[in-house]
Amino acid sequence: MLYDTRSAPNPRRVRMYLAEKGLSVPTTQVDLGKMQHKSDDFRALNPVSQTPVLVLDDGFALSETIAICRYFEELHPDPPLFGVGPRGKAVVEMWQRRAEFGLMISVQAVFRHSHPAMTQLENPQVKEIADNHRPRVVAWLEMLDKELAGRAFLAGDAFSVADITAFVSVEFMRPARLAIPEGLANVARWRGEVAARPSAAA
Amino acid sequence: MLYDTRSAPNPRRVRMYLAEKGLSVPTTQVDLGKMQHKSDDFRALNPVSQTPVLVLDDGFALSETIAICRYFEELHPDPPLFGVGPRGKAVVEMWQRRAEFGLMISVQAVFRHSHPAMTQLENPQVKEIADNHRPRVVAWLEMLDKELAGRAFLAGDAFSVADITAFVSVEFMRPARLAIPEGLANVARWRGEVAARPSAAA
Repeated sequence: MLYDTRSAPNPRRVRMYLAEKGLSVPTTQVDLGKMQHKSDDFRALNPVSQTPVLVLDDGFALSETIAICRYFEELHPDPPLFGVGPRGKAVVEMWQRRAEFGLMISVQAVFRHSHPAMTQLENPQVKEIADNHRPRVVAWLEMLDKELAGRAFLAGDAFSVADITAFVSVEFMRPARLAIPEGLANVARWRGEVAARPSAAA
Repeated sequence: MLYDTRSAPNPRRVRMYLAEKGLSVPTTQVDLGKMQHKSDDFRALNPVSQTPVLVLDDGFALSETIAICRYFEELHPDPPLFGVGPRGKAVVEMWQRRAEFGLMISVQAVFRHSHPAMTQLENPQVKEIADNHRPRVVAWLEMLDKELAGRAFLAGDAFSVADITAFVSVEFMRPARLAIPEGLANVARWRGEVAARPSAAA
């Protein structure tokens, strides 16, 4: 059973990953607006109160987006989304982390600390945090644009979990009220290609 | 060649990992105080200007702490520090990420945004960011204390890369001028055991 939240970016990464793999998992929706993730029952599944959580057949609760994806990757290695071979796996890990620490964290920080819908969930909202992260998003996308001049996807010529993290982050810029910088032709090309994949609608 | 910084927590994680594996890699020191990581030469190795970076024999530059560790893990699987089997690997990934997002990021944010030595490197320092992260560190360690009541290490009975991330983060609390909350007996026991491992001095 996958505890999912339709509106949140991390659960979307898992849904997109599963769609790329052609896997289907039963889901239960957790409504963050109703604070369901702060309930005792949900905290028993994840002490840090975040979705997604994957509950295994024996009741073990696995959380953290990338841990859930890696679990499925080990069970269903094809098509590989975490890279192939020591170097290939390391390069996907590098770009997955760059996308997460350089882009996703900043987009989420802007959303949490500036969006009116988050006043209860992110208490206190700190304007200075949103202000600090906005230019980081722009700088990271400019860096990515240079990188994507030479290859199709973040970690090379094959689509990977790093693209999922970056794409979902870019998609989450709209609710975070962040504009995608103009003139980043390689980012635009990459984004269009990823958006056209059926998994983008998962 | 490993581009290392003796004083920084992320390079320490790689050194500790290599010591646990019994591996030795030639290193070059990058002095962040002298802004060597912002030089054009270093940016060519890592466009996001962070140590550590591992340059492979063919010149490819691999960055991101966990990507470097995973590369060595694939080449030298024993002793396993990223878990064994689909579930074991997923649980280590979960705890490594919890330690990184829940503890390390917050300790680093406090250090960067409050320490007088960081006024040039973290410009602007934002007091509100440090203030926002301080209580997160306490809450995360309280959560960890409950978890460690039932097992030896973060991800189970075996030492793993998750312990490296959490231990190096706790060690970095001193330069960040954060006190370890009193009364966390399980955290204290775990910390003492990890500190006694030879790799803690690497």
